[in-house]
Amino acid sequence: MDHATIGRSEFDQATAVRPGPDPSRFLVDVDAGWTVGLKPNGGYLLALAARAAGGAAHAAGADHADPLAATAHYVAAPDPGPAEVHTTILRTGRSASQVRTTLVQGGRACVDAVFTLGTLRDDVDAWWEAEAPAEVAPLASCVAMGPNPPGADFTVAIRNRSELWLDPTGLGFASGQPSGRADFRGWTSFRDGRPADPLSLLYFVDSLPPATFDLVASGWVPTLTLTAYVRARPAPGVLRIRQWARVVDDGRVDEGCDVWDSRGRLVAQATQLAAIRIPDGATAGPGEG
Amino acid sequence: MDHATIGRSEFDQATAVRPGPDPSRFLVDVDAGWTVGLKPNGGYLLALAARAAGGAAHAAGADHADPLAATAHYVAAPDPGPAEVHTTILRTGRSASQVRTTLVQGGRACVDAVFTLGTLRDDVDAWWEAEAPAEVAPLASCVAMGPNPPGADFTVAIRNRSELWLDPTGLGFASGQPSGRADFRGWTSFRDGRPADPLSLLYFVDSLPPATFDLVASGWVPTLTLTAYVRARPAPGVLRIRQWARVVDDGRVDEGCDVWDSRGRLVAQATQLAAIRIPDGATAGPGEG
Repeated sequence: MDHATIGRSEFDQATAVRPGPDPSRFLVDVDAGWTVGLKPNGGYLLALAARAAGGAAHAAGADHADPLAATAHYVAAPDPGPAEVHTTILRTGRSASQVRTTLVQGGRACVDAVFTLGTLRDDVDAWWEAEAPAEVAPLASCVAMGPNPPGADFTVAIRNRSELWLDPTGLGFASGQPSGRADFRGWTSFRDGRPADPLSLLYFVDSLPPATFDLVASGWVPTLTLTAYVRARPAPGVLRIRQWARVVDDGRVDEGCDVWDSRGRLVAQATQLAAIRIPDGATAGPGEG
Repeated sequence: MDHATIGRSEFDQATAVRPGPDPSRFLVDVDAGWTVGLKPNGGYLLALAARAAGGAAHAAGADHADPLAATAHYVAAPDPGPAEVHTTILRTGRSASQVRTTLVQGGRACVDAVFTLGTLRDDVDAWWEAEAPAEVAPLASCVAMGPNPPGADFTVAIRNRSELWLDPTGLGFASGQPSGRADFRGWTSFRDGRPADPLSLLYFVDSLPPATFDLVASGWVPTLTLTAYVRARPAPGVLRIRQWARVVDDGRVDEGCDVWDSRGRLVAQATQLAAIRIPDGATAGPGEG
């Protein structure tokens, strides 16, 4: 299916929520198709929880379907398979509602998240913006990332769900030559043609390889906490995306992610703190090391 | 007192927590000295909740006193006076613990927050940093901000607790001539001489005027949600601070805040989403308007 619609797509199926044993609980299936290695992608889990949050707000009489702000704290990594999302309404208001969710699997709380929900407009222009969209090489000059990166002993299953074309300036890491910039830029969209919407931006902001791959060949870089703001309803078309790191220290790194729609509107921005293990004696390539 | 110590200072008194009716609940007093207008400062409330989170982690056997990451969602503004902080341990681990808190006043949940706690080092250098510290005019060339800004009909009581010297390039707003940059830079420290520590950085990242004052004379800009990462234990001395806005749209603005210690180490970084009401027809000064 090349033209999946919102509501009938791989992403919508994988984030579906069903009523649970009481109105505050929702049944979900953590989908094996949205994983990196054995573990579900953090942005996918955030979108899954957002569906439950929206369901809880709707049940409480609040017609706020769009995530405006979302923060997840990843407590334990769930496995693909059945789980529940427990919801608590913090506030329902005229313009926004706030809902807390906990994704629980096998009695274990895995992801704690809080959402501010509202209704986004599809404004072409912001009232004010400090910066122009990030410069990215034209899509035809970028490199499509596949689910089996060279040398990796795991599958990036999410690359079968969303396409990512990376600007070649950030691709040195794939051949063991990180640039030392930690700044990935590219283009992304769902493979099945589903348009991007506010919900799916919660996935896209966590869908790139760790920007630190462009510094050092570390192991995986698990997200500890992720915060995303969705600023406008995206126009149809491929998304422009940038992910960058600012500081690596003492086992942790912060990474920012910005997403622009096809009109150049900044539609989502995110920040995350992740754990990273730097190999002994390694320096950030190319640098002096 | 010009040389208050950690544990015996205005900030420590205002963030004190006492055991409550059960081990998960802490009694606090929201202090009228840490307000802007009638309402407590959001960073102060985050630090107050962090004290309770640390107490809960300690009671659970986790010796993790420093906030590494914190996110608050501001549901309702509490008033100065008695309140409780309810805590839930999400996880205790070897290197970090995660605790959820809810500040409750008069039966109303006001601030929902989640903390990742651990133990920070006082490394002089990060392993890798993308940027140098923001350029700020020397302190002697900056302008001390007082608790009664010209033309404002409210008191910024936090300015009696922490000093803020703003770089004059961002000060046009005070005379009705916003620059249109939305980028405040300056220096800050506690008035009573208490050194900065990881806990107090949760306050400092929300202690500047809204960067949007440098765009337009809007009303107050209440924080909806604030996320802070504390990256290292600050060295003694005055903090260098920058707060900036990136996008203003549809009633909301994101603001970043970075804090460096006296060695130039990035010790805290924060992002917030706030509500803003743009006066009809206003443009971001000076611009074309």
